Amino acid sequence: MEKADRRFSVVRNRGGIVREQPLVWREEVSPGDKESVHRICELSGFFSAEEVDMAVELVEERLAKGVASGYHFLFAQHGDTVLGFACYGPIAGTESSWDLYWMAVEEKRRGQGLGRKLAAEVERRTRLFGGRRLYAWTSSRDQYHPTRKFYERLGYSHEATLRDYYKPGEHLVIYVKQLPGTPHSP
Amino acid sequence: MEKADRRFSVVRNRGGIVREQPLVWREEVSPGDKESVHRICELSGFFSAEEVDMAVELVEERLAKGVASGYHFLFAQHGDTVLGFACYGPIAGTESSWDLYWMAVEEKRRGQGLGRKLAAEVERRTRLFGGRRLYAWTSSRDQYHPTRKFYERLGYSHEATLRDYYKPGEHLVIYVKQLPGTPHSP
Repeated sequence: MEKADRRFSVVRNRGGIVREQPLVWREEVSPGDKESVHRICELSGFFSAEEVDMAVELVEERLAKGVASGYHFLFAQHGDTVLGFACYGPIAGTESSWDLYWMAVEEKRRGQGLGRKLAAEVERRTRLFGGRRLYAWTSSRDQYHPTRKFYERLGYSHEATLRDYYKPGEHLVIYVKQLPGTPHSP
Repeated sequence: MEKADRRFSVVRNRGGIVREQPLVWREEVSPGDKESVHRICELSGFFSAEEVDMAVELVEERLAKGVASGYHFLFAQHGDTVLGFACYGPIAGTESSWDLYWMAVEEKRRGQGLGRKLAAEVERRTRLFGGRRLYAWTSSRDQYHPTRKFYERLGYSHEATLRDYYKPGEHLVIYVKQLPGTPHSP
């Protein structure tokens, strides 16, 4: 079923050139997204089993409490096939700070601009919700070097480092991006 | 009922000198603690209505999910009367970092060493659970100047400042205290 979806997501034009279908954005969260998020996190090649479980828990929290959970999701799809997702939301107790809790795309999609498009969509939606600062936490581990470079290219700036946060020698690195105000909330 | 408890919590000795009962520590959380936490937060004179609600939500989360919530509570009592509490717990995804999510004591108890005793008990218990770093987040607001000084006196060090985190001009200040290992986990 999923394989079929993925096959249909690629359109061969007359010249035989592979052309991608346009991306579809989806905000609604359904129980099936526990599986999508699990799959994408695993296919990203980035996360430990414990971290994958944490991502799935965000979905469960959202399913249980709705928007009151504080977790917004955004799924990037070709047809029904999820290629990547982001989880973000307002930080309770702050006026307009938002957190990009999680973002993952399939490893094979990397380098195709999907992560950049996903981040841009999250920023756009955060701005519309009134968010003015978007935080992204990541690790100082070598494995996350591409992640840190990714955020820097997107205009995030390094705000703080919490030494040995994850474990001795592995620090928490906090990035933040200031979002411009909307015309109605300058 | 509560007034009666509070009256009994003070013992007048022969010389008429007011002497406090020994503190009792309680870890178990019951539905009645929603009210205790609400009351202590209000009586602390420190928190906005929204913040008080956030503290009560921690209790609700703990009641709903037990220890799996990640929230440990510690109540400081005279008899059955709660004088202060702390909420702390392991930070998911880290090896041994813990968070002191919330701490509050009645305003009239301030300056009597209750906060210091509560913090020391939290540190002791965190260490026994294997925690090696205890984080405390607070605000840069003038109102929280005593809080920041309190942490500094207790040996917490300033780790990072996230500018404009709470709102423009109000920063997040992150403190951390390194806890010594237990004899069995050096």
